[in-house]
Amino acid sequence: MTHTTNGLEFDVLRRAYAAGTLSPVDAVNMAYDRIEATRETDGVWIHLEPREGVLAKARALQELSPEARAAMPLYGLPFGVKDCVDVAGVPTTAACPEYAYVPEESNPGVERLVAAGAIFVGKTNLDQFATGLVGARTPYGIARNPFDARYLPGGSSSGAAVSVALGHVSFGLGTDTGGSGRVPASYTATVGLKPSRGLISTRGMTPACRTLDCISVYATSAADALDVLDVAAAPDPTWPYSRANFDVPTKYRALAGDRFAFGVPRESQLEFHGDSVSEAMFEDGIRALEAMGGTRHEVDYAPFLEINDMMFMGPMVAERFAIFGEFLKRNPEAGHPITRMIILNAEEIRAHEAYRMLYRLEELRRQVATLWESFDTLLVPTVGRPFTIAELEAEPLKVNFDHGYYTNFVNPADLAAIAVPNGFGADGLPRGVTFAGPAGTDAWLAELGGRFHDRRGASRPAPVAVPA
Amino acid sequence: MTHTTNGLEFDVLRRAYAAGTLSPVDAVNMAYDRIEATRETDGVWIHLEPREGVLAKARALQELSPEARAAMPLYGLPFGVKDCVDVAGVPTTAACPEYAYVPEESNPGVERLVAAGAIFVGKTNLDQFATGLVGARTPYGIARNPFDARYLPGGSSSGAAVSVALGHVSFGLGTDTGGSGRVPASYTATVGLKPSRGLISTRGMTPACRTLDCISVYATSAADALDVLDVAAAPDPTWPYSRANFDVPTKYRALAGDRFAFGVPRESQLEFHGDSVSEAMFEDGIRALEAMGGTRHEVDYAPFLEINDMMFMGPMVAERFAIFGEFLKRNPEAGHPITRMIILNAEEIRAHEAYRMLYRLEELRRQVATLWESFDTLLVPTVGRPFTIAELEAEPLKVNFDHGYYTNFVNPADLAAIAVPNGFGADGLPRGVTFAGPAGTDAWLAELGGRFHDRRGASRPAPVAVPA
Repeated sequence: MTHTTNGLEFDVLRRAYAAGTLSPVDAVNMAYDRIEATRETDGVWIHLEPREGVLAKARALQELSPEARAAMPLYGLPFGVKDCVDVAGVPTTAACPEYAYVPEESNPGVERLVAAGAIFVGKTNLDQFATGLVGARTPYGIARNPFDARYLPGGSSSGAAVSVALGHVSFGLGTDTGGSGRVPASYTATVGLKPSRGLISTRGMTPACRTLDCISVYATSAADALDVLDVAAAPDPTWPYSRANFDVPTKYRALAGDRFAFGVPRESQLEFHGDSVSEAMFEDGIRALEAMGGTRHEVDYAPFLEINDMMFMGPMVAERFAIFGEFLKRNPEAGHPITRMIILNAEEIRAHEAYRMLYRLEELRRQVATLWESFDTLLVPTVGRPFTIAELEAEPLKVNFDHGYYTNFVNPADLAAIAVPNGFGADGLPRGVTFAGPAGTDAWLAELGGRFHDRRGASRPAPVAVPA
Repeated sequence: MTHTTNGLEFDVLRRAYAAGTLSPVDAVNMAYDRIEATRETDGVWIHLEPREGVLAKARALQELSPEARAAMPLYGLPFGVKDCVDVAGVPTTAACPEYAYVPEESNPGVERLVAAGAIFVGKTNLDQFATGLVGARTPYGIARNPFDARYLPGGSSSGAAVSVALGHVSFGLGTDTGGSGRVPASYTATVGLKPSRGLISTRGMTPACRTLDCISVYATSAADALDVLDVAAAPDPTWPYSRANFDVPTKYRALAGDRFAFGVPRESQLEFHGDSVSEAMFEDGIRALEAMGGTRHEVDYAPFLEINDMMFMGPMVAERFAIFGEFLKRNPEAGHPITRMIILNAEEIRAHEAYRMLYRLEELRRQVATLWESFDTLLVPTVGRPFTIAELEAEPLKVNFDHGYYTNFVNPADLAAIAVPNGFGADGLPRGVTFAGPAGTDAWLAELGGRFHDRRGASRPAPVAVPA
């Protein structure tokens, strides 16, 4: 089912390729025409591969035997990569030019996508060092919100989400530590699939918190995102954070007919930051889920909030110092001022504080793990409400922190999640919801998220920046 | 097979109970007669239950129906518990009187042992806060080495090991973070089984490093130790560090006939601290293992040594501050001077240092995990050589650190291990070896360790302190 005017959706391109009405060369030209039309002002791409070289790769794909092409699950699909994930021979900046380097090897997920026929076109913008949930902490310009340029794009994978929303590419790789693979999905009416930790190798990814980082997928539908995950996910025996086997309860093997149970935070614990439109739309989403056969359970959200606080206010920030601290100290001119401040402030945090936090986190993780006996998935708004760039400028730390109210806990609690559209408000802005479940339930969540998206997000206004 | 003059071995008591030549009451009296004979000077017991109460429990066991008794796998076996593991209603001191408290609940492992018919008699001595591998950092006296009182007993589970060596009890619970469940086995010619992390719940154990701690078993044979583990191990859904499912390669399902491969550190990496007796006996042990059908593989020990250094010289010590730091700061008179110094020195360690260490540890853990493709178990001496109390007094930090040369890495690398006797030297002192393997291979290791013990440790001098 097509939800957007992207025009590069997997089923659209696959049908056109099969019918011979389009070729990968045409798709690449469509992508570049769109990208180049707004490149100067949209803040999406940090690096774009030269069109001619990419067209040559598309031509090489077309010249393969029909059998070889048929064996490529992502044949001819153009994609971008968040610029904190390595692509061999292309600079990785992590949105900090002074930090840039040219890797010799691609991240294994990227390699697998290319081997499956996907066509890499460039690197997308992000909150520097993937530290932030707003998409504005970058020297490469704020990726323009596709529906209202006064609003943030969400971050840190801002470019990945906007590039998909604007039909620049069929899909984009993002990353997700505290919500970077989900928040921008809400702002751009795209799907953000945050896989179980370790499913896609994070080797060749600039870490944010190495113990928590994931590579994530942005696409226009849950089915497309799951196709990408199926290709990119593979055990990486050389990488300590790679995981392959998850102890998944059998109930998640398949989404059983129309019977499932979902948890929702108590009403008093829901936070929309004063936005009645967001509140009403989330209620509509709950009713839609009930109409789909779901049973609502009320959940005490306190353990999730306690984990959230560890992420940007607690010892977890010391991981970012462990990774970027020495670099920032050696390079006093480098780094976004807010990002510098957050990371350098973490230098003094003591190891015993981190250990005590890890003890508490283990307790909370165990507590969360018992919840799945009562219901199958946790439903939350992806963000409480959309925020404007002006609001962020007025309160840069608070607005960023508010963005994590429904996202930060997911990786520390070892969950998988998918952020899907929940329609558009009368204000013309999209809202989203996130389904979360235990690690290993990625496919189950994508199936449910896709059904919800079909019901709630099928009609939408065209992104303003897409050429007619 | 009986290796010691303990007289309270499982098979000895079981046969005597079956034949009616002994009863649990007799066993308890044997235990108390021995304990009381040397209690003033042997430094083994911090707390002893009153004999009358324990006899009453033994009597109650005897009065159960034959069916009920037969269903108790540890029926009538007296045991002690290291005094950092809770037994309901009995003070836990962790060898620090100022720290003492009386727990309301027993550790779940203890509870399961008692439910299986084992008879609790008291709490055994240890290096304070289980911080140390020497058995001398305690205000309750140094547990006397059963073979030469000039020598250390090894630690931190000194009392547990000596109590088994002296025939005070059939078995003892110890703990193991950096080697406490193995080093004293070497000094006392007992078996120290260090189970996979999480197999026995550590709830109700005074933590040393909560993320690494194990409850361990001391017994006179590997088979007895495994019997205890089989009872004590159980998933504890309320405890974050409990683990039940291990992804164990199928080759470990059973010790296949007489064909197995064992790794040994390169000769240049073996360290006997100048003791040719220890060196020759380890070589004899290797030859015995080869005669048993084992194939020797040379291993680069460098990754193990790198993990060792993290334990007592690196950020891992900050875990001990996280647990005891505030207590020691509030109580300036409390604590052994060395233990105080080690723990309080860890206050300033930074969280980013700990995170970087954890990153490196993950890499090393992954590196170690690949070794099991080449061989089945790592064989090391349990300690390089026996050290005297005088040597420890001269160099308290170095001698303690040397004790961990073959032990510290085991828990951080997520291994299971068993320390078994490797005979006695002409100096009258025992030596031991340790078999280590990936988590979940406990039974396989115990089987191999038991066979090795049968071959190498069957004859031995009587411990000097056992009444004739």
